Amino acid sequence: MKVPKGFLWAGQEAGIKPNRKDLALVFSEAPCSAAGCFTQNLAKAAPILDAERRLPGEGFRAVVINSGNANALTGPEGVDDVKTVCEAVAQELKIPPAAVVTASTGVIGVRLPAHKIVAAAPKLVSSLKPDPLAAAEAILTTDTRIKIGSRSVQIGGKDVTLTCICKGSGMIAPSLATMIAVVATDCAITPPMLSGALQRAMRRSFNALTVDGDMSTNDCVFALANGKAGHPTIADPGPALATFSDALSDLCRQMAKEIAADGEGATKLLDVTVDGAPSEDVAQDLAKACAGSSLVKAAIFGADPNWGRVLASIGARAGTAGYAIEPADARVTVQDLAVYDRAPLGYDAGVLKARMREPEVRVEVDLRRGEGKAQAWGCDLSYDYVKINADYTSLIVTKPDGGVAKDETRWCTSPSSPAPAA
Amino acid sequence: MKVPKGFLWAGQEAGIKPNRKDLALVFSEAPCSAAGCFTQNLAKAAPILDAERRLPGEGFRAVVINSGNANALTGPEGVDDVKTVCEAVAQELKIPPAAVVTASTGVIGVRLPAHKIVAAAPKLVSSLKPDPLAAAEAILTTDTRIKIGSRSVQIGGKDVTLTCICKGSGMIAPSLATMIAVVATDCAITPPMLSGALQRAMRRSFNALTVDGDMSTNDCVFALANGKAGHPTIADPGPALATFSDALSDLCRQMAKEIAADGEGATKLLDVTVDGAPSEDVAQDLAKACAGSSLVKAAIFGADPNWGRVLASIGARAGTAGYAIEPADARVTVQDLAVYDRAPLGYDAGVLKARMREPEVRVEVDLRRGEGKAQAWGCDLSYDYVKINADYTSLIVTKPDGGVAKDETRWCTSPSSPAPAA
Repeated sequence: MKVPKGFLWAGQEAGIKPNRKDLALVFSEAPCSAAGCFTQNLAKAAPILDAERRLPGEGFRAVVINSGNANALTGPEGVDDVKTVCEAVAQELKIPPAAVVTASTGVIGVRLPAHKIVAAAPKLVSSLKPDPLAAAEAILTTDTRIKIGSRSVQIGGKDVTLTCICKGSGMIAPSLATMIAVVATDCAITPPMLSGALQRAMRRSFNALTVDGDMSTNDCVFALANGKAGHPTIADPGPALATFSDALSDLCRQMAKEIAADGEGATKLLDVTVDGAPSEDVAQDLAKACAGSSLVKAAIFGADPNWGRVLASIGARAGTAGYAIEPADARVTVQDLAVYDRAPLGYDAGVLKARMREPEVRVEVDLRRGEGKAQAWGCDLSYDYVKINADYTSLIVTKPDGGVAKDETRWCTSPSSPAPAA
Repeated sequence: MKVPKGFLWAGQEAGIKPNRKDLALVFSEAPCSAAGCFTQNLAKAAPILDAERRLPGEGFRAVVINSGNANALTGPEGVDDVKTVCEAVAQELKIPPAAVVTASTGVIGVRLPAHKIVAAAPKLVSSLKPDPLAAAEAILTTDTRIKIGSRSVQIGGKDVTLTCICKGSGMIAPSLATMIAVVATDCAITPPMLSGALQRAMRRSFNALTVDGDMSTNDCVFALANGKAGHPTIADPGPALATFSDALSDLCRQMAKEIAADGEGATKLLDVTVDGAPSEDVAQDLAKACAGSSLVKAAIFGADPNWGRVLASIGARAGTAGYAIEPADARVTVQDLAVYDRAPLGYDAGVLKARMREPEVRVEVDLRRGEGKAQAWGCDLSYDYVKINADYTSLIVTKPDGGVAKDETRWCTSPSSPAPAA
């Protein structure tokens, strides 16, 4: 996989989680333009409050991310802990603390063991290398797979590369649905242009994603651009910005689909397309409502051709949002088999059930009310989703030092889930 | 249980579901004022389209309800089938078809076997009696318990009785969250007054309820008032209306709680109170968001004291709806144990976990932002919810006559669920 010039990555065990990488660092050898997108949740984690205040901007060099603890709803100490982490990593990297942003993911409401991150900072920095794999692994929580993607494009005759690492996999909500993603690129671009491209990329990627409808306190997407590709800096809209922006959007779409497919307990990716809506935004909202319906998700899990739930979920959302559509006039296909067209259609239920056992289930709805078309991704609702979330904290609150005694990795090693890719 | 004067009830097996009561009739010996509240889903079932057009009004005598088939998304034939049912039952009762309304619940998108209802009409009518139990049983789908409630009040020196039968238990959404309820009363009241009281009663009862966030195509609540109590007719606001309205609201609240406690797969009732909100409506919306959060529900199932998800769900809803609150300033108690008060509190996790194993889990959130206070009810998210909904239709689509071959009653007789009360 191609990676952008001038970036180094690291992933280490800091002891926030037992026996697993839980601390990641993305470092640029040159100062970066940086931008971010953040959760709409009002219960924002301390690192979000800090980063949101400072981005977009220039001169950024590093992103530090820990898993195992969200540093959310931790009171004033949570904000102090972010400062402590920034300062410790900055000192080790010999850069100003203001050049560092942080992100956290894990349990809410338990104080971040910042001293563990401070203690791990030297080995974290000394293990920096051009391969993003260890960093991508260290940010995972209940994910079962590492998520990395890259795109390369030509801008001003130079190769420009974008690499994204991200994690899911629960608390994935219909608005900025990811826990954490970092896009590193050697593109030369000003902070406002980078920020605009990032906002645009969210629209049909992380914002088109739903796993459980629960919006995280810690959702954030960072983009860092260090300019090492060597082309003239993108400072205005035009073909260069469009090329970069399209590559970023495409990369984010890939990552969003990977998060959906690896949703908590997921056995299948659910891919919903709504066409013929009054607008693209309405189409996306309805597609997300369908992909997020517990009943649709449970039916997909059971390979049950209960297509009535598709139109019921769309009609419900349209009814509360006031969209001018008529579900009864729609056409619905599941795995390319037409099941409804203004009235129920005859079809071979055995064939459909067999097709619904495939790892990706596609639902298409044509509303016949306009030109709006959009896609959304989700996953099925399985026993494992319940299992994963029924005792997530367990022993956590009993530890006096704020550390996490529970091994989240067991969800990655249970017989029904594949082990992490690395 | 006291029942209103002049009402007769019946429940029979019409063969829509195998070996189980699936057809209910509520009949008044005198013409009634009638009112209804209906789902906001745009994919409205045929009986909803018919009843919504005709209510509120006078002269109504009967409500016919079938389970096992929703008659939703069934094309123009679905509307014809409603007419056929009304006419057959009216003929048997020797009343005009316009005095009959219907409701259906069950699988979506399969034609209603109206001929089975026509064939069963004589035995349905001949089995009418003053006891509502058989009717209450016949409307159940995945419910595990019959739901009946009554209230008696004095109006104008006369005893006035209200009796409600209702069913849940999945596709229970945050807006008019029930599948079907019928309130019969011997109160003398005009249709507009009855309709107003019914709308008011919904507000803090069926509208404060969420099981899975999936709004049904068939949600409806009917109220029939036959005036047999003999007091002067309530035609204007005043003390008499207030007495009736309070009793109706109280009855609906009880039924809503019973539906929540018997939600699909539920092992516990979840009772969320939000206080200190900018308004009562905001409080209710936030309480519902919390009660509807998959992550909160899964934690309740596992008796996991993961209270961070409570404030995360409230912050998420407030962020998207634009409510001026600050989750970090809140106070949170779970089962009367304070867990957060502007910062995480120390508490005995063992004690809390033990209390969370009780059949009712109470979550209280004080937002410290105003006087708004409201309650919402939900249930936990269990393996059984997934199981029930993963193969709901199974064999249904293979039957050529539109009938339902699958036995929904097995969910009532599985070892993990109690058998129906009758």
